[in-house]
Amino acid sequence: MRDPILLTPGPLTTSLATKVAMLNDWGSWDAEFNALTAGVCRRLVAIVDGGAGFVCVPMQGSGTYAVEAAIGTLLPRDGKLLVLVNGAYGERMAKLTRTMGRALSVLDFGETHPVEPAQVAAALATDPAITHVGVIHCETSTGMLNPLEEVARVVEAAGRRLIVDAMSSFGVLPLSARDLAFDAVIASSNKALEGVPGMGFVLARKDALLAAKGNAHSLSLDLHDQFVYMSETGRWRYTPPTHVVAALAAALDQYDAEGGRLGRLARYEGNCARLLAGLAALGLKPFLPSALQAPVIVTVLAPSHPGYAFPELYERAKASGFILYPGKLTELDTFRVGCIGAIGSAEIDGALAAIGQALGAMFSDTQPDQR
Amino acid sequence: MRDPILLTPGPLTTSLATKVAMLNDWGSWDAEFNALTAGVCRRLVAIVDGGAGFVCVPMQGSGTYAVEAAIGTLLPRDGKLLVLVNGAYGERMAKLTRTMGRALSVLDFGETHPVEPAQVAAALATDPAITHVGVIHCETSTGMLNPLEEVARVVEAAGRRLIVDAMSSFGVLPLSARDLAFDAVIASSNKALEGVPGMGFVLARKDALLAAKGNAHSLSLDLHDQFVYMSETGRWRYTPPTHVVAALAAALDQYDAEGGRLGRLARYEGNCARLLAGLAALGLKPFLPSALQAPVIVTVLAPSHPGYAFPELYERAKASGFILYPGKLTELDTFRVGCIGAIGSAEIDGALAAIGQALGAMFSDTQPDQR
Repeated sequence: MRDPILLTPGPLTTSLATKVAMLNDWGSWDAEFNALTAGVCRRLVAIVDGGAGFVCVPMQGSGTYAVEAAIGTLLPRDGKLLVLVNGAYGERMAKLTRTMGRALSVLDFGETHPVEPAQVAAALATDPAITHVGVIHCETSTGMLNPLEEVARVVEAAGRRLIVDAMSSFGVLPLSARDLAFDAVIASSNKALEGVPGMGFVLARKDALLAAKGNAHSLSLDLHDQFVYMSETGRWRYTPPTHVVAALAAALDQYDAEGGRLGRLARYEGNCARLLAGLAALGLKPFLPSALQAPVIVTVLAPSHPGYAFPELYERAKASGFILYPGKLTELDTFRVGCIGAIGSAEIDGALAAIGQALGAMFSDTQPDQR
Repeated sequence: MRDPILLTPGPLTTSLATKVAMLNDWGSWDAEFNALTAGVCRRLVAIVDGGAGFVCVPMQGSGTYAVEAAIGTLLPRDGKLLVLVNGAYGERMAKLTRTMGRALSVLDFGETHPVEPAQVAAALATDPAITHVGVIHCETSTGMLNPLEEVARVVEAAGRRLIVDAMSSFGVLPLSARDLAFDAVIASSNKALEGVPGMGFVLARKDALLAAKGNAHSLSLDLHDQFVYMSETGRWRYTPPTHVVAALAAALDQYDAEGGRLGRLARYEGNCARLLAGLAALGLKPFLPSALQAPVIVTVLAPSHPGYAFPELYERAKASGFILYPGKLTELDTFRVGCIGAIGSAEIDGALAAIGQALGAMFSDTQPDQR
C-alpha cells in the first residue's frame, strides 16, 4: 500500500530521495557529518540572503523549540517582547515567552485579520520598554499571510529588533535580509523545504547572537551556547538527529534542482490555485480572501449541510489515500487542506476527487450547501 | 561503500530494518501515528516494569532535552536537587539545573570513582532542603556503572525523590520499578534500544508528574503539559519526529525478538568481553577496573608510545571502516570504543584488527608500550 498523501501543515509528504537519505548511519563526531551540517547551514543562510552577517544555528526538536530558543536567547532577561498575534502560533509565541518569565506585551488582531503595521507602530511608541517584536510570517492556523515587510519597516523605524517565526513560509515566500531588518528568522526542516521533522533552525544576526550570552533560561535551548560550540568544533552540542539532517541535505538538493525559492513557490502557487478552484467547484468556500491566502494551507469553511462532520470527512478522504487536517479557528467550523510538500497537480486533483466523493456520500446524493 | 561501524556512545550503527522503517511518511495527527506512539510508550514502560503507576512521556530532541524536561518539571520551583557527579553527564545535569535557576547541591566523586551511597546518605541527612536526587546510571563519559540500587535505597530511606539519567544503560542493565523507587528514569531512542536519534523519553511516576503542573521553566520542555495533552488527544503537543518514532518502533520489535533486556545484555556483554580481551592482546589497558565497567563503552588508556596521537588512530581506523570515539577525561589521555548498537563479534573483531593495524603503522614495527 502507498502512504496516504499528507495535506497538512507538516509533517508533509516527502520524496523517496529524501527518505532514502536516512538509510545511512552517521557518526555525530565525525568530520563527514560536520561537513553535512555545515553545508545545510550555509544553504539555509543563503535562502534569506544572509551573507556574512548572519549565522544558522540548527536546534534539535520541533520548530517550537527553535522559536523558544531564539526568544529565550536573543531577548535579554530585562528585555520585553511585543508579540503580534492573529492565530494559534502567535499565541504560542506569547505563551512560551510568558512561561520563561520574560516581560511580554501582546497585540491581538483576532484570527480573521492580518497584523496591522500602524497599530504596531503605535504600540511601540507607547511602550518604550519593548525591546523586541515577534511576528508570525504565515499564521499556519488559518493560512494567513502577515505583512512582514511593513512590520519590519515599522519595527526598524522604532529602533526595536524583530524576531520572525517563518515556519511555514520559509523557502517559499519572499524573506530576504537585503529587504528587511531582522535579528532572527526561525523555521524547521519539515515544511516547505520538504525534509522530515526533528529539527528547527534559527537564522540569526551574528552580532545580536554573540551579544546574547547568558540570556537563556534553558541549557538545551541556549542558542548562543549551541552556536559557540558549533563554531569552535563543527559539531552539535548534544546528540544531533543525524538522519533528519541527512534528509534535509537531500531535500535541499531537490530544492535547488527545482529552482530554489521561485521554483518551489511556483509549484505551491499552482497547487493552491488548483485547490481553491476545485473546492469552489465543490461548492466549498475558503475562509480567507485571496489577498491574504498564503500558498501553504487553505482553511475551508465547513459545509452547513446537516450530514457534515469532519471526522467522517477525514476517514473517508483517508480511505481514498488523502490525509486532511482539522480546523483551528475558535469561532468557525472549518477544516484545512495543505498545498505544500512533495505533491503536485495529480495529488491536488486526487484530494479534490476524494473530498467530493466523501461529501457526496455524506450528503447522500445532495450537493453540499453553499454558505 | 558500506557505512563505517560506529563504536561510539551514540548515535550508533542501527540495523537496516530500523532505517527502512523511516521510508514512510506519517501524519502526526492521524490515528495510526497515535497508535504507533502509544505502542512505543507502552513498551518503554514495560521495560522498567512500570505498571499502571508509571507513564512514558516522549520528548522531541536529544536525551539532554529529556533530562532537562524531567528536572524542570518534577523539581518544584522551591525544591532543591542534589546531583551525584562523576563525569561529564553528571556535570551536565548540574549545569542545566543551575541554568534554570533552581536550588542545587553537587556531590562530586571525581571521574575515577563511582558514586558512594554512604556519602549520599550523609549529604541528605545534613541538608533537609534537598527534595530530589539526580544520578547517572552509567556515566558514559568513562563507561562507569554507578551503584543505582544502593543509591535508590538511601534516597528512599531519607524520604527524597530520585531522578535517574539512564541514557546509555536503559534496556540493558537492570532497572526495575519493582526493585527500586524512582520518580523518573530518562533515556533516548538511540542508545541500547538501537533506534535513531531525535527523541528522548521520561518514564515518570504518574502521581509525581500530575503534581508537577506549573513547575516547568520552559514551554517546550514542560513534561506535564506534554503528558496531559498526549493523554487527552493521543498526539504529541508539537510536531513529533515521525520517522524517528517509526524507527524506534521497529527497533523495539528487534529488541523483543532478541529476547528483550537479557538478550541484548548478553550480546553487549559478549561484545565488551571480546573487546577487552582483544585490547589486552594489543597491550592496551582499560581505564576502569572490570567491576565498574558497564558493557556500554570502554575507556582505553592511550599508549605511552611517542608515535601515538588520537587523531591519527581515528583516521586510520576510519579508513578501515570503524569510527572510534575520543576520551572525555580531564586528567588522562584516553580514547573510547563503544560496544553497543547493531554490532556483534564480527564488528568487534574488525575494530580490534583495525586498531592493531593502525597502532602498528603509527609505531612503525614496534608494539605499543604498556602503561
